[in-house]
Amino acid sequence: MARGPVTGRKGVVETMSEQDASRGVMFGGVFRRGGVETGDQAWLRAMLEVEAALARALERAGLAPAGSGVAVTKAAVPEHFDVAELGALAALTGNPVPALSRALTKQVPRTAAGAVHRGATSQDIVDTAAMLMAARGLDVIVADVAAAARAAAGLAVKYRSTIMIGRTLLQQAVPVTFGLVAAGWLAALDDAAVGLARIRADRLAVQFGGAAGTLASLDDAGPRVAALLAEELGLPLPVLPWHTNRLRIVELAGALAGAAGTLGKIARDVTLLSQSEVGEVHEGPGSSPGSSPGSSSGDGGSSPRRGGSSAMPQKQNPVAAVAILGCTKRVPGLLATVAAATEQEYQRAAGAWHAEWETLADLLSLTGSAASWAAELLSGLTVDTGRMSANLAAAKGLPLAEHVTSLLAGTLGRAAAHDLVAEAGARAVSAGLPLRDVLLGLPQSAERLEAAGITAEQIESALDPAGYLGAAAAFVDAALAAHQSAKEQADRHG
Amino acid sequence: MARGPVTGRKGVVETMSEQDASRGVMFGGVFRRGGVETGDQAWLRAMLEVEAALARALERAGLAPAGSGVAVTKAAVPEHFDVAELGALAALTGNPVPALSRALTKQVPRTAAGAVHRGATSQDIVDTAAMLMAARGLDVIVADVAAAARAAAGLAVKYRSTIMIGRTLLQQAVPVTFGLVAAGWLAALDDAAVGLARIRADRLAVQFGGAAGTLASLDDAGPRVAALLAEELGLPLPVLPWHTNRLRIVELAGALAGAAGTLGKIARDVTLLSQSEVGEVHEGPGSSPGSSPGSSSGDGGSSPRRGGSSAMPQKQNPVAAVAILGCTKRVPGLLATVAAATEQEYQRAAGAWHAEWETLADLLSLTGSAASWAAELLSGLTVDTGRMSANLAAAKGLPLAEHVTSLLAGTLGRAAAHDLVAEAGARAVSAGLPLRDVLLGLPQSAERLEAAGITAEQIESALDPAGYLGAAAAFVDAALAAHQSAKEQADRHG
Amino acid sequence: MARGPVTGRKGVVETMSEQDASRGVMFGGVFRRGGVETGDQAWLRAMLEVEAALARALERAGLAPAGSGVAVTKAAVPEHFDVAELGALAALTGNPVPALSRALTKQVPRTAAGAVHRGATSQDIVDTAAMLMAARGLDVIVADVAAAARAAAGLAVKYRSTIMIGRTLLQQAVPVTFGLVAAGWLAALDDAAVGLARIRADRLAVQFGGAAGTLASLDDAGPRVAALLAEELGLPLPVLPWHTNRLRIVELAGALAGAAGTLGKIARDVTLLSQSEVGEVHEGPGSSPGSSPGSSSGDGGSSPRRGGSSAMPQKQNPVAAVAILGCTKRVPGLLATVAAATEQEYQRAAGAWHAEWETLADLLSLTGSAASWAAELLSGLTVDTGRMSANLAAAKGLPLAEHVTSLLAGTLGRAAAHDLVAEAGARAVSAGLPLRDVLLGLPQSAERLEAAGITAEQIESALDPAGYLGAAAAFVDAALAAHQSAKEQADRHG
Amino acid sequence: MARGPVTGRKGVVETMSEQDASRGVMFGGVFRRGGVETGDQAWLRAMLEVEAALARALERAGLAPAGSGVAVTKAAVPEHFDVAELGALAALTGNPVPALSRALTKQVPRTAAGAVHRGATSQDIVDTAAMLMAARGLDVIVADVAAAARAAAGLAVKYRSTIMIGRTLLQQAVPVTFGLVAAGWLAALDDAAVGLARIRADRLAVQFGGAAGTLASLDDAGPRVAALLAEELGLPLPVLPWHTNRLRIVELAGALAGAAGTLGKIARDVTLLSQSEVGEVHEGPGSSPGSSPGSSSGDGGSSPRRGGSSAMPQKQNPVAAVAILGCTKRVPGLLATVAAATEQEYQRAAGAWHAEWETLADLLSLTGSAASWAAELLSGLTVDTGRMSANLAAAKGLPLAEHVTSLLAGTLGRAAAHDLVAEAGARAVSAGLPLRDVLLGLPQSAERLEAAGITAEQIESALDPAGYLGAAAAFVDAALAAHQSAKEQADRHG
Repeated sequence: MARGPVTGRKGVVETMSEQDASRGVMFGGVFRRGGVETGDQAWLRAMLEVEAALARALERAGLAPAGSGVAVTKAAVPEHFDVAELGALAALTGNPVPALSRALTKQVPRTAAGAVHRGATSQDIVDTAAMLMAARGLDVIVADVAAAARAAAGLAVKYRSTIMIGRTLLQQAVPVTFGLVAAGWLAALDDAAVGLARIRADRLAVQFGGAAGTLASLDDAGPRVAALLAEELGLPLPVLPWHTNRLRIVELAGALAGAAGTLGKIARDVTLLSQSEVGEVHEGPGSSPGSSPGSSSGDGGSSPRRGGSSAMPQKQNPVAAVAILGCTKRVPGLLATVAAATEQEYQRAAGAWHAEWETLADLLSLTGSAASWAAELLSGLTVDTGRMSANLAAAKGLPLAEHVTSLLAGTLGRAAAHDLVAEAGARAVSAGLPLRDVLLGLPQSAERLEAAGITAEQIESALDPAGYLGAAAAFVDAALAAHQSAKEQADRHG
Repeated sequence: MARGPVTGRKGVVETMSEQDASRGVMFGGVFRRGGVETGDQAWLRAMLEVEAALARALERAGLAPAGSGVAVTKAAVPEHFDVAELGALAALTGNPVPALSRALTKQVPRTAAGAVHRGATSQDIVDTAAMLMAARGLDVIVADVAAAARAAAGLAVKYRSTIMIGRTLLQQAVPVTFGLVAAGWLAALDDAAVGLARIRADRLAVQFGGAAGTLASLDDAGPRVAALLAEELGLPLPVLPWHTNRLRIVELAGALAGAAGTLGKIARDVTLLSQSEVGEVHEGPGSSPGSSPGSSSGDGGSSPRRGGSSAMPQKQNPVAAVAILGCTKRVPGLLATVAAATEQEYQRAAGAWHAEWETLADLLSLTGSAASWAAELLSGLTVDTGRMSANLAAAKGLPLAEHVTSLLAGTLGRAAAHDLVAEAGARAVSAGLPLRDVLLGLPQSAERLEAAGITAEQIESALDPAGYLGAAAAFVDAALAAHQSAKEQADRHG
Repeated sequence: MARGPVTGRKGVVETMSEQDASRGVMFGGVFRRGGVETGDQAWLRAMLEVEAALARALERAGLAPAGSGVAVTKAAVPEHFDVAELGALAALTGNPVPALSRALTKQVPRTAAGAVHRGATSQDIVDTAAMLMAARGLDVIVADVAAAARAAAGLAVKYRSTIMIGRTLLQQAVPVTFGLVAAGWLAALDDAAVGLARIRADRLAVQFGGAAGTLASLDDAGPRVAALLAEELGLPLPVLPWHTNRLRIVELAGALAGAAGTLGKIARDVTLLSQSEVGEVHEGPGSSPGSSPGSSSGDGGSSPRRGGSSAMPQKQNPVAAVAILGCTKRVPGLLATVAAATEQEYQRAAGAWHAEWETLADLLSLTGSAASWAAELLSGLTVDTGRMSANLAAAKGLPLAEHVTSLLAGTLGRAAAHDLVAEAGARAVSAGLPLRDVLLGLPQSAERLEAAGITAEQIESALDPAGYLGAAAAFVDAALAAHQSAKEQADRHG
Repeated sequence: MARGPVTGRKGVVETMSEQDASRGVMFGGVFRRGGVETGDQAWLRAMLEVEAALARALERAGLAPAGSGVAVTKAAVPEHFDVAELGALAALTGNPVPALSRALTKQVPRTAAGAVHRGATSQDIVDTAAMLMAARGLDVIVADVAAAARAAAGLAVKYRSTIMIGRTLLQQAVPVTFGLVAAGWLAALDDAAVGLARIRADRLAVQFGGAAGTLASLDDAGPRVAALLAEELGLPLPVLPWHTNRLRIVELAGALAGAAGTLGKIARDVTLLSQSEVGEVHEGPGSSPGSSPGSSSGDGGSSPRRGGSSAMPQKQNPVAAVAILGCTKRVPGLLATVAAATEQEYQRAAGAWHAEWETLADLLSLTGSAASWAAELLSGLTVDTGRMSANLAAAKGLPLAEHVTSLLAGTLGRAAAHDLVAEAGARAVSAGLPLRDVLLGLPQSAERLEAAGITAEQIESALDPAGYLGAAAAFVDAALAAHQSAKEQADRHG
């Protein structure tokens, strides 16, 4: 067993320093792009906001002296607190709130001390802070998904009639339009945005139940304080405290996973369509830091070229699509964690609740990062319509085999038509000939067509991709109309 | 490496017989209880219903001769088809639909043959069949969740004022009522039902897009046939075919996982509350097969006793709760599978779609089984209020320490009050004395209380659990009111 | 909410019939190919084998009358038992063993009755049965993975020098050989087989602990009976009963997931390499049922064409690769279930154990099916070396940009070389010209090359893919040598 | 939709600042305890070590000027690099290595510049850095698991004969010893350590393949440089580069998940055993920061009391066990992510590889944190043997029902014995009487016993828990012996 230079540096039962624990920045350009904030400072800020709002609510309910709310609010600013110390003290009680509320108490005037954390349990603060972060995060994500949807709508309009080959099971199938592809992305993005907005509007909620969900330490004033707290924070008031009813969290995570899945599907398509051998779309130059002209040179500047490879000068990697996939592939596992963490014991759980904190933060950040990347990706997507035509032409009529079969089925019967065309197709492939040439040129086939009264013109017409697009345009229009109507509805509610 | 008797029976690249593949029955009593049907016969029936509805839709659209719809519908009965053969042939094309549509074609009169599967791709049939199964499954699950909710509501009403100890992190905390516990279950079940019903009403949809989502083989009649198909099946019509937009599936799976999580939380509580050392609730006798009186004897009859152990005669295992947990613990992983399968390529996917079929069926069955178990469990739950009182009494006042602290905080200040009570509590624990006796009996403590003007009556009153229930009753009432209003709303829409 | 024809068929709290629960066959051709048996009959057989072996062990230990072992073994044949009844009765106790042991007891002579299930708890029977199924399943999977590895080795040998373009992030990168691609598959398959074989040899074990792991009902004979039971079954004897130490199960699931991941990677490569636009490999005709000549016609026969599409006559889908992906994409979620189920309470768990049964069976079946498909896929893989050359030629020298850069770096410095080549590459792409022509033909570039003393011959040589394969051949040889040595080692231990 | 105070702060497509992205510290006391380092600085340090080792390897291979290795090694110190800048630039290329190698190049003398990153692709650096971090992390985790195992062994020795009630499905079952419980933990910890150590010794490996796995830019020197690199880093050399063969990563993650599962099971037991109603074990005071005497006061100091609740002065939460569960419950989902990420395309993957980075780091940290907590937890565990006796006594003989049944079965037959005892047990429960009193005192029962020739002494003896421990002591000894032998083996290889 090779040990040499690779050896653990630390002994047993030792506590990590702040620097050792700190993370998220090195790969942040990939996984934490955009405006969703779920880092340590965001948690601190949100927890302080909850404590401050609680003090104001208590004052409004007559349970704290006048001025307490303002005093606590003034003290509750992140700059006064040391995340590293709070994090270390979290080890004593299993979460950072007891240390935070003590530290906050020390920052306020003696008269306001009684308004700090009164009635609350640690979980009230952490859960409500998580809801605040989720609310803000969802706003950002919905905006980025909407930006991506607008870009997709633009593509759907612009390429409504641009014919390309459709592909199923990664094999060329029948013609579609790029407009329809973009309309499919659009419809999915619109759906995802609706799902996220629904959670934002209906399923977030303040958490305030005290030690075991009765708010006993507030006597009978609990529900009123809870209502005021909800008002102060702009979060809905739930019917009951939900300490061990985690359905909201699962629904939030589920909506994020749905959105991430949608973004991942689009990114997968972009990586495939931009393969060297397909080349139908390309990522634009992006707006990343350091992507200004000149920065892409190999002159030893600190900024590598966007999409570049340190080794291969010709490479133009689909960075945005790859980054999206890097984000979205992490989401299903995190979703499973949250779903499994629903099994929470009694009035407050031993471990399952704790497992949610960073997991939920990661779900928000990763989905947010993917959405931010996607908004940029779709806004800048370059479409190579020439390559689309060329790829279709290179298929030499095979993608229209189904159409030709339909044409022949009327007279030959479906099975015979299928067999004749399948045979011709196989021959066309092996000989490298257009399907047309085989169908019309091969005596055996030509005779049968003639006998069936099928003309060469009919065959040629059936082989025209433009004549075999079915409802493609109608579907594009339907997706655009639905998008327009969703946008109007969102504007009314926004 | 011990090989002896344990050796593989089969060689490489061999196909499994029907008997070998068949599964789901041996453990079906645990995992497939209740009315959700997702087995092979349910799939077959649903796929045939889709093919039949398509034929009727084609006829109505004027694309198939009069009578085709009826003819295909008549032929499309499960009894005419051999699941084992379809399953074996699925290996040729990657799914059973090509073989099924061929077999169906052979069952219909020649004139109706053209109405079979026309315009459709295999995925249209499988996806729409899955939606039918989901629709039916959701109806059953919603009904069972509602039954469980009704039972929980009954418990909340009956035990509205039954005091018990609340427990956090598995430690005794402060008093709650069993009514509040049941109200918490109720609110969660109601939430879960709303989530499921929303999917049932809004997010299922017919799938009909043909080879690559253009319905090209129906020329421009595709959207009309799709609309008629949706009508025939009683499923919503989507804006676009959703072959590679799997958000619906994720949302469905997410709602099921939310419901499963809710059921799992309740079952976890029941297993904990029915621990030998807690004993506050017990499962009722259940309505399982063979649970009739007498069947539980050890007389060699084939029916073991409900909740019994083959070895330990005294055992009364919480079978329903354990079965629920057995179901619900399988859900998060399956949810992750579905969420990861959203990354589907181009117009139709190579593998990710396939991964959904049995996974979705399992999600429906497991959630359905858990819901069915839960309806029975909560309907028959025995509550031991005597044990609740006894457990609370055995805590000797410690759960009221917070209350006493509040009382003292007014005069002593919160920190000093906290310390005094914490010290008294520690002493009470180590000496096995009631907190009251330590507080009032210990000179050091008694002096401080006297100095602060706190009387023994005040202490005793603060130690009365009934006086420290906060909003428990109000929360019970709120949950019951919300339940009532949800029920009325569901009845209006049902 | 459209309800019409889609309505739940069953009420609340009803038990599913056998037919309703039975599953696994309809999609069995995809998900349960090959010789791994984990269906209901396999469970029944394995559980009976354990009960029979226990009776023999008890007799050998002097705890059951002579002849009991034979008598129980004779009775313990699957044909005597009704899976549907056992499954229904499983609802009473949470697992089918109490009903099974009762039924078995009734089948044996009175004198042997005392030898049935003596000392055992239900979990002993189910866990040991699962180990038997795992042992047999692993034998089959290892054999199929080995068959796939042999096929990969054959490809590595045959195409050791066949140059093709290597692709990274789905973009053409630098040349590789198909031999190296196959060697990569080979090395991964060999690794996976080692992992599976290690579990098979070292980590399966008999489970025998009685009610709570003390085997108390056997007095002090427990360990001896356990040892005899292990011997009878050919399974290792663990240090302790492992009722709630599930590490073995996680390790088994982990090895299966590793193998599945390896198979999925290969299948992903095959789907990509066989894309219409790449076309470098194709699946062979396979050996599926009904794939005999003639069966692939559209003549209404019940057998569809292998890889065919019901709609598109030209389609040749990569069915095996897609089926593998359909299987392997289901594995990570199931693995998570098993890993989460490790948190088992006290001496035997309430739910987490139950969640393992069908999950483990699915993991075995899905990995086994993928392995069976892969053995066929790789054995029949058609390699289109012409297309490989053509695809490389179509890249017009760009994949050698890195090589040219290296050549120039010596004199120009790396950064300048990188920039010059990157610029030439960009120009080559936009003009559709070979890199050579731009480098040598563009005055600006030609001058700099001349100034640096680089000749056209040097450039042309650097642009020869055969000269830029690095260690490709050495790596192929290393993988083949490692394969040979692994095979010899396996043969020695097999 | 309530928006008020909760609104997203940032627009679309904006890049997060370092402070916003930074995370891991606030909850670090729970999730990143102990010596496993996987934060940004650990990544930076490890990547620089790989670059430095590569330069030294190149020099040793004669591919870089003398002195290059030292020069690059000297420059490759974390202090010279800005994580925030690297992280931001990672957005350009999808990973931070291109920016890092540029920055490093600028730090070295011109003559050594050619030795920086030569031959490598970004993935070589990241993967090898991950392996270094894994190697160090595994050393730390193995040490902490071993410390936990030593503590468990101590408990097994000390409490070898301490009788307590065994519990199955959370119900009291039959007697066990606490020594056996600890021996079960010990055996599981030893197993887990073996699994981790095996990965550490056999399955980590250097990654070095260049752009597409051929090391072409090093001509034929690739394998030699790879071997030297492996030597420099003390990591094994693989047969082939493993850019898209991720079995090593799955195996590493699987071993971590196995260890985490083992730790979670122990923590679950501790939370259950330390329930207020059970009280058989308690967490010790711990060695956390601020847990010094006096710091636990409520005097407004910044340190809360270990295990304390801000609200409830009497609470003594099992913080270590809860923290372990908080960590281990996050592992299965992350494992699923890694397992799903095995499906990597071609020579290097588009997204799946990226998804591994932070996931693997989290798996190492969470398992490491759980192991560190567990070492402390088990070392300080307080065992309340009095409570164990009391709990057993409170069961009034019921846990011996199985034993009494065995006694009676000899004469009455097993079924009749089972029924008689079950009936007596039920009566004992309902009447609150000891089983002995019912069996011997109830005329109906006493008569049957007399008729069967069973004496009161026999019954009383059968009801003695000490007489019904079966192989408990033997199993404790077996686990201790296995532990000793594992330790000796580890010492020999360590």
